[in-house]
Amino acid sequence: MKRIAESTVRRLSIYLGFLEDAQDRGVLTTSSDDLAKLGGTTSAQVRKDLSFFGSFGKRGLGYSVPELAARVREILGLGREWRVCIVGAGNIGSALARYAGFAERGFHVSGVYDSDPVKIGSRWGAVTVQDTADLERDISAGRYDIVVLTVPSENAQEIVDRVVAAGTKAILSFAPVQLTVPGDVELRTVNMAMELEALTFALTNRPGRDKQ
Amino acid sequence: MKRIAESTVRRLSIYLGFLEDAQDRGVLTTSSDDLAKLGGTTSAQVRKDLSFFGSFGKRGLGYSVPELAARVREILGLGREWRVCIVGAGNIGSALARYAGFAERGFHVSGVYDSDPVKIGSRWGAVTVQDTADLERDISAGRYDIVVLTVPSENAQEIVDRVVAAGTKAILSFAPVQLTVPGDVELRTVNMAMELEALTFALTNRPGRDKQ
Repeated sequence: MKRIAESTVRRLSIYLGFLEDAQDRGVLTTSSDDLAKLGGTTSAQVRKDLSFFGSFGKRGLGYSVPELAARVREILGLGREWRVCIVGAGNIGSALARYAGFAERGFHVSGVYDSDPVKIGSRWGAVTVQDTADLERDISAGRYDIVVLTVPSENAQEIVDRVVAAGTKAILSFAPVQLTVPGDVELRTVNMAMELEALTFALTNRPGRDKQ
Repeated sequence: MKRIAESTVRRLSIYLGFLEDAQDRGVLTTSSDDLAKLGGTTSAQVRKDLSFFGSFGKRGLGYSVPELAARVREILGLGREWRVCIVGAGNIGSALARYAGFAERGFHVSGVYDSDPVKIGSRWGAVTVQDTADLERDISAGRYDIVVLTVPSENAQEIVDRVVAAGTKAILSFAPVQLTVPGDVELRTVNMAMELEALTFALTNRPGRDKQ
């Protein structure tokens, strides 16, 4: 398989959201034009994005919605359940633990950790907040596929080092700070300010902007 | 100015984070190699990203950190304060209102709205939660530049329609649902599942992945 740019993966996620909505509405076929509109891109780009993963659709007939949805799910690795643990039982952690969009895509929050004695032992839906001191033990036991980090910035690198040493290969961080991981660990940082900056960039530089 | 891809804007945000860290540490110059490493891209891409906005740096000498930081801030529209209102005083809203990364970049949360009588009137740091019924009045009065939407999915489009009718031109939504806005309104959707999908894609498709 060719190398895939991160922007392509993002668009695949957007296409999938649209395809799942279409499935719910009973729509059976869609076109690269439809997908392009939603992904904020061109139909040529849609065809290129999908072409990385083999041949889809029939010229003039468009794509079969259930077929394409199943294939994009598979491409994104969503054909299985992913066990997620959240480290940091604060506001963002709490919001994520309840986030409806996770379960829909097969992300199962099966552990929450915090070092605050007041929070340890409290129930968060189906899970009980555990002591961060037990994190390495549980990760080493293979209990989680993905670690979501919602601790304060000043603690983030320390937790990253600990979970990586215990065997974690995928981390999603919400701490607004640069983190370092070994080359075989996948790290993504969600930066809320970055999302606002995409807006202020667009507001400041209109017209002449490109939504792609 | 040429049209700028969204992926370029994202990288500019990442470069800026690094440049500001470098400034704090007293570092005076940087190279496209350094910026590339942090942006998960190549030095050629860094030079291309920056070339959209004029000529930067001196061959062999690299970039002046304060100069480049100031220019990227200006490009991203961060040379001013942006007044943000949050609609939906739940967990995500609360986390965002306290998010340290916002103030650093000039985003000032100056209003929070909810329709729950229990929440209306409660203090969130410097702001008091107001009734969503007053949203149109305050937006029409020009009190906010950006609306951040943290309401449940089923209410999201209704609030979008209301704030757009009242004059909002920039919306950041955390509802995991497709929203429709007129062409002159900037809408960004933060989809937490999408961030996890970038991880599962990488986990599923290694090796042969591209971090760009």
